Amino acid sequence: MTEVENKQVIFKGYIDGVPQLGDFELKIGKLKLEAPKGSGGFLVKNLFLSCDPYMRGRMRDYHDSYIHPFVPGQPIEGFGVAEVVDSDDSNFKPGDIISGFTRWEDYSLINKESTQLRKVEPDDLPLSFHVGLLGMPGFTAYAGFFEVCSPKKSDYVFVSAASGAVGQLVGQLAKLHGCYVVGSAGTKQKVDILKNKLGFDEAFNYKEESDLNATLKRYFPKGIDIYFDNVGGDMLDAALCNMRVHGRIAICGVISQNSISNPKGISNLWNLIPKRVNMKGFLQSDYLHLFPRFYEEVSNYYKQGKIVYIEDIKEGLENGPAAFVGLFSGDNLGKQVVRVARQ
Amino acid sequence: MTEVENKQVIFKGYIDGVPQLGDFELKIGKLKLEAPKGSGGFLVKNLFLSCDPYMRGRMRDYHDSYIHPFVPGQPIEGFGVAEVVDSDDSNFKPGDIISGFTRWEDYSLINKESTQLRKVEPDDLPLSFHVGLLGMPGFTAYAGFFEVCSPKKSDYVFVSAASGAVGQLVGQLAKLHGCYVVGSAGTKQKVDILKNKLGFDEAFNYKEESDLNATLKRYFPKGIDIYFDNVGGDMLDAALCNMRVHGRIAICGVISQNSISNPKGISNLWNLIPKRVNMKGFLQSDYLHLFPRFYEEVSNYYKQGKIVYIEDIKEGLENGPAAFVGLFSGDNLGKQVVRVARQ
Repeated sequence: MTEVENKQVIFKGYIDGVPQLGDFELKIGKLKLEAPKGSGGFLVKNLFLSCDPYMRGRMRDYHDSYIHPFVPGQPIEGFGVAEVVDSDDSNFKPGDIISGFTRWEDYSLINKESTQLRKVEPDDLPLSFHVGLLGMPGFTAYAGFFEVCSPKKSDYVFVSAASGAVGQLVGQLAKLHGCYVVGSAGTKQKVDILKNKLGFDEAFNYKEESDLNATLKRYFPKGIDIYFDNVGGDMLDAALCNMRVHGRIAICGVISQNSISNPKGISNLWNLIPKRVNMKGFLQSDYLHLFPRFYEEVSNYYKQGKIVYIEDIKEGLENGPAAFVGLFSGDNLGKQVVRVARQ
Repeated sequence: MTEVENKQVIFKGYIDGVPQLGDFELKIGKLKLEAPKGSGGFLVKNLFLSCDPYMRGRMRDYHDSYIHPFVPGQPIEGFGVAEVVDSDDSNFKPGDIISGFTRWEDYSLINKESTQLRKVEPDDLPLSFHVGLLGMPGFTAYAGFFEVCSPKKSDYVFVSAASGAVGQLVGQLAKLHGCYVVGSAGTKQKVDILKNKLGFDEAFNYKEESDLNATLKRYFPKGIDIYFDNVGGDMLDAALCNMRVHGRIAICGVISQNSISNPKGISNLWNLIPKRVNMKGFLQSDYLHLFPRFYEEVSNYYKQGKIVYIEDIKEGLENGPAAFVGLFSGDNLGKQVVRVARQ
């Protein structure tokens, strides 16, 4: 049996604050290219790994969440696209492409009980889309927008972190649904992309605004029906002052707060009462029964040229930590992916 | 036409901070006991007036809410129970009892377009109940609990300001629904009432607790399914750390924050995501189609001895401002009512 090098990105230990390069270390081991007989699992060669903000939550010593923390001393776990190399599972054979939870290393042994494991059927879409547009982030956008936000045609929709992995699809789905859509992002380049490539009606750079409440009043003189919140913090506080009656807020992420031990706190929640706003935290994993419909609809939109999807692909597993760390300062332009290997 | 004295409680002007006695002044005028011909309205003698926390919101110069601010120099407006004295409206005749919006004065002219105006049919229930158990606060409890909280049998329910006008009915409805119910209040006497008269499973005095997060963990070791929030602030922040998966938070009031210009802010909203919590602000006025069902169910519960209702009745319109101001320091024991006159 061939023995090969297996490069790994190891999680060093629980942290406070913003993730740093030093929170990870590279390790090179050896591995036999086989799925042990009787294991019922299969061995994959990782092709793409996904950098997602929720992973910051797994760097805390907090065990009461929907997903367990990373294990110190072990490789990071995350969504990926991979090719089956050897298999003890009759459902998967060498050459198959899968998406689902894998680990940050060249080769991983996947347990058949792995959640959200899917076989990728060959088509002409980029493989990396299975951790982006057609994977967890895309499905988060779809489930969050349609199931949590209850959108109606002509609704005024605001999306924060709008050029990110989730936000860019939320905005495009909202446009296809007949909504008026404004997005916020943190650089001029991202704002240009929102307006010129992603079809948002308006977009602004939140870093250039001194009074977000006034900014939102300017972009939404009649108020916001739907706020798809990827950031929390000051932007959420400002949005709360600008909601319309019976507005909806989907709490998808809190990237502005992920790394802050003592966040400032949200002061404008009282607006939920006079405006009768519904605010809901959600996880895509509660809506997996809708995944087949999502996949068909969104892949068709893409093939028909009705939506685009912007990816930021870093080459090489060794550059994975930097790609992940960069999420928290907005270094990425679109969905952040790490290419580990080519097929 | 008889001319009589008409005592009024005048709203002096917009305020910041906690309502004070000095924000109001008594004025005594004269009034003809008639409803002007052609007005389509009717004149009432006010019997009971309701002191409700939402009225604090009407003391601000803020015109973007569901209800307009009080008019400086004019009597306060609020819910009341009154007897018709003269009428230019064929639907109402002298001697009829009504509940709805009236003004803080001996006699008021009611416009037929007045919202939530109801004729009180004679029965053996206390008239004051029409601004409490069977009026806006009772209906707030009913609509909030059944329509916003989606209760299930065996749910773990937490109610703050639990001995107040709304909270005491929420807790009793939850018990009748088969839930486990804990309430918080601000004195030992209120806590005793919650446990011994209102049938709550447990109750605690929040003023004696130094760590509300730990307190809630003690009372809800398995977490909270439903938090009916009447107070906002620190209690909401602590509840957010103790919600169960798919929990619901009904934001009914923020009495702890009503009078604070720069509240500290809520820091634990991120819990909405891993626990997929739904948090909704609501107003009873959105659910008025359910009022007849509420009235029948709750008055029957009361007549059958299945629920009780605790009122705090101050005598005399001149004591109205003190009764209202006392709400914000928890001076009231149960629903705060002012008796203006006897029938």
